[in-house]
Amino acid sequence: MAVKPGIPKGTRDFSSAEMAKRNYIFDTIKEVFRLFGYEQIETPAMELLSTLMGKYGEEGDKLLFKVLNSGDCLAGISDDELAERNAAKLSSKLCEKGLRYDLTVPFARYVTAHRDELVFPFKRFQIQPVWRADRPQKGRYREFYQCDADVIGSDSLINETELVLMMDEVFNRFGINVCIKINNRKILSGIAETIGEADKIVDITVAIDKLDKIGLDNVNAELREKGLSDEAVSRLQPIITLSGSNEDKLAVLKDVLSGSETGLKGIEETESIFRYVSAVGTKADLELDLTLARGLNYYTGAIFEVKALDVQIGSITGGGRYDNLTGIFGLKGVSGVGISFGADRIYDVLNQLNLYPGKSAESTKVLFVNFGEKEAAYAMQIIYRLRHENVNAELYPDVAKMKKQMSYANAKNIPFVVMTGEEEMNERKVTLKDMETGEQTSMGIDDLIERMR
Amino acid sequence: MAVKPGIPKGTRDFSSAEMAKRNYIFDTIKEVFRLFGYEQIETPAMELLSTLMGKYGEEGDKLLFKVLNSGDCLAGISDDELAERNAAKLSSKLCEKGLRYDLTVPFARYVTAHRDELVFPFKRFQIQPVWRADRPQKGRYREFYQCDADVIGSDSLINETELVLMMDEVFNRFGINVCIKINNRKILSGIAETIGEADKIVDITVAIDKLDKIGLDNVNAELREKGLSDEAVSRLQPIITLSGSNEDKLAVLKDVLSGSETGLKGIEETESIFRYVSAVGTKADLELDLTLARGLNYYTGAIFEVKALDVQIGSITGGGRYDNLTGIFGLKGVSGVGISFGADRIYDVLNQLNLYPGKSAESTKVLFVNFGEKEAAYAMQIIYRLRHENVNAELYPDVAKMKKQMSYANAKNIPFVVMTGEEEMNERKVTLKDMETGEQTSMGIDDLIERMR
Repeated sequence: MAVKPGIPKGTRDFSSAEMAKRNYIFDTIKEVFRLFGYEQIETPAMELLSTLMGKYGEEGDKLLFKVLNSGDCLAGISDDELAERNAAKLSSKLCEKGLRYDLTVPFARYVTAHRDELVFPFKRFQIQPVWRADRPQKGRYREFYQCDADVIGSDSLINETELVLMMDEVFNRFGINVCIKINNRKILSGIAETIGEADKIVDITVAIDKLDKIGLDNVNAELREKGLSDEAVSRLQPIITLSGSNEDKLAVLKDVLSGSETGLKGIEETESIFRYVSAVGTKADLELDLTLARGLNYYTGAIFEVKALDVQIGSITGGGRYDNLTGIFGLKGVSGVGISFGADRIYDVLNQLNLYPGKSAESTKVLFVNFGEKEAAYAMQIIYRLRHENVNAELYPDVAKMKKQMSYANAKNIPFVVMTGEEEMNERKVTLKDMETGEQTSMGIDDLIERMR
Repeated sequence: MAVKPGIPKGTRDFSSAEMAKRNYIFDTIKEVFRLFGYEQIETPAMELLSTLMGKYGEEGDKLLFKVLNSGDCLAGISDDELAERNAAKLSSKLCEKGLRYDLTVPFARYVTAHRDELVFPFKRFQIQPVWRADRPQKGRYREFYQCDADVIGSDSLINETELVLMMDEVFNRFGINVCIKINNRKILSGIAETIGEADKIVDITVAIDKLDKIGLDNVNAELREKGLSDEAVSRLQPIITLSGSNEDKLAVLKDVLSGSETGLKGIEETESIFRYVSAVGTKADLELDLTLARGLNYYTGAIFEVKALDVQIGSITGGGRYDNLTGIFGLKGVSGVGISFGADRIYDVLNQLNLYPGKSAESTKVLFVNFGEKEAAYAMQIIYRLRHENVNAELYPDVAKMKKQMSYANAKNIPFVVMTGEEEMNERKVTLKDMETGEQTSMGIDDLIERMR
C-alpha cells in the first residue's frame, strides 16, 4: 500500500461536516449582504502579475503564488539570463500570471475594467478564496476565503453607517457577542498634526494601546524613546488617558484638536456615523478606539474592527474608507468603503462557543434499508414522493446486513430509518425507526410523508 | 488614463446579473444532490504535482497549470540543468504544486487520504472551479466550474439508477427537455469480443455513430478500412442497424452477444437499471445508445450522457462507472460511479431557451430615496424593519437629484422605490412607487411592510 497522498502545506480538505459549518457562515453573511443591497461578483483565481505586483508592498510581492507560463516556459529567456540565477528576475519571465492575494485589488481592477457597465454607487460583495505563500501556522493558511463587501463611488457616511449595521446584523445572527470599534484616519492625522509629529502616528497608537498593560509612565517613556519631544508627550496626555463614553471622548478630542482642520473633520465624520447608527441602534457595543490603526497607509477615513467578547482571538472583521483604490489602474477620484469578514476566525469562534445550529438542513433526513431488489423498487417509489416534498432521502444501495446499514445511518447522523420488508410491502406500510429514541412505529405511506415533511 | 487592466486569457469576470444565473444553476444542482443524500466536500485549488501528473495522459500533463515554488525557485537546480534548457524537466524542479485539472483525481486523493474517517458507500458532491491550459475558444475556458457527484465503495446498480433519477430531476427543475443516453462498457467489450476485434471498439462506435449521416454502405466501408474482416463487419450488421425501443435493442444484443459472458453481463446491468428506473419513472427519455463511448479507457460499466433536445449543443452532463479510481493512490478494489454537470453549457442552454426564473430573490426589492440627513434617519428606521422581514432594502447613500436616484433603481432593476420627504415624515407615512407601472401610493409604514413582505 502506497503512503497516503498529501496536499500542499497550508491548504485544507473540507469534510461534509466542515462544509455544513462553512456554508452556514457564508450563507448567513451572503444573506445579510443582500439584505443591504450588495450584489455578488466573482473574478478569476488567476490575475496577471502586472495587476498584482507592487500592490501589497515588497513583502506582499514575495507572498504571491506565481503560475508558470504554459507551453515552453523558457521561451524568451536567454542563456545569460539563466546563468545569472536571479530568481526574482527569472520568475517574472517564467510567469505572467499569479493567484489572487486578496479580493481588494481584483475588485479595483474589476471596477476599472467594467466602469462603463457599472451603476455607481456600486455596492458589491465577493466571497472567494485567496492564496498567500505565508509560513503556515495555527490559524494561518495558504488558501483561505475572504468575504468582502464594498461600496465605491459615494462619499456619503450612510455607507459607513450601513456597514456598521451590517456587521451588527451578521454577528447578531451568529449569536456572537462583539464590540465594534471605530476610528478615523483623519483624527489620527489631526493628533499627529497637533503635536507636530506627522510621521509618528503608528508609534503613537502602538504606545497608547499598551496603557492598560504597562501604565501611563511607561507609555510616556516609550513615546519619548520613539523621539517625541516632552512638549508633544505632554500635549498627548488627554488623548492617552481618553476614557468614558464615545461622547466624552469626542468632546475631549474636539478640544485637543481644535487647531487641526483635518482632525475636526474626522471628529465630525465619526459623530455623524454615531448619530445615524443611533437612529436604528445596534446590539453590539460601538466604541471609538484611537488605537485602531489597521492598514493605516491604505485607509483615509473611518476604520472599523470587530472583536469577539467571549473568546480570546484577534479581530474577526475589519475595514474602512479608502479614497484612491482604483487610482492604481488609472481610474481617479473614486472613493470607497468596505469591510471584510474573517471566515476562518468566525469558524473557530462558533466552534469554541458551540454556536452552530443543530441539525443541518443539508444532510439526509431518512435512510431506507435495502432488503433486496423487489423491496428496493418499492422503497424507491416512497423515496420519490418524499423528495418531491423536499425531504432529503436515500436508499442504502447494497443488500447488506441490517447492522451495517444501521451503522451507516448512525455514522451519517441520519435521524430516521425506514424499513420496507416483505410484510410492510404486502400491507402497503412502512416501519419508521427514530434513531435517537430507538422507537419503531408501523405506519401508512401518507403518514410517513406527513411526518417527514 | 491608463489602458483598462486585463485578465488572463480564457478566464472571466462574472457580473452580479451573471452571478444570479450561475447561483441559480449551482443551487438547483446542490439541492438535488442533497435530496439524494450526497454530501458536499471541498479540496484545495492547488494539489501536489505528484498527485496530478500522469493521471490525464501525456496531453493532459501539458495542460496543467504549474505553480512556481515560493522562496528561491532556483534552489536545487544546477547550472548544468539550467543550461540544458529542458523546459519540461526544469518545470518539474521549479514547481511542486499545480492547479487542479478536474474534481475526479482530487476526489480519489481525498478518499485515499481520509479512508479511515469516511463511511462507505461514500456519496459526495463537489462544486469547484478547475483550470486547464487549453487553447481558449468559444465555450471553452481556462477556468470553469465542475459539478460532480460520485458514490464510491458500492457495486449496486441502485447507484446508477439514482444518478439517472438525479439527472432527470435536475433538468426537470431547469425546464430543459433532455434525452438521457445510457451505454455500458461491458456491452462494447462484448461486441469487440464477439467479432474478434478487441482493440477496435472506438473505431466501431465512431463508425456506427455516422449511420444517419453517411448510410449503411459507407459505415461498412469505413469499418473495413479500419481493418475489420468481412466476417466481422457481417456479424456487426444487426448491431449497426439496431433500432426500436430499448427492449428491442436489448433483445437483439442478447442474441448477438450470446457467446460473450462480458457482453451478457453488460446487458443484464443495463436491464437492471432500466427496471429500477421504471419503478418511479423519468420525465426525460432514456435511450440505450451504443455509440456512446466517452472516456472509454476510464469507464468499466454504465456510461451516461445527457443531450438537450431543443438546442444544438454537445452533451451537458456525463458520467459512468469506474472500477479502480483510487488504485492510482494505492487504495485498491474500490468501485465508484459518478456524473458531472457541465455548468457552462447549462448556462448557455438556459440563456438560449430563456428559461431563467424572473426576478431573482438575490437583488434589492426596494430603494429609499435620500432627501437629506433627517429624512435618511427616518428612512433607515423603516428599512431596519423591512430587513427584519427579510426584504432586501437599501437607502440611496447620497443626497442626489431625484432623477439620478431613480435611474439607479432602474439600472439595478429594483421594482419599488419609497419616498420619505418632510411631508411623509410629519404624517408618519411613505410614498411607494411601483417602478413597473409608475403608480405612486401614499401609505402607512405598517402597510408598506405588509405589502413588501
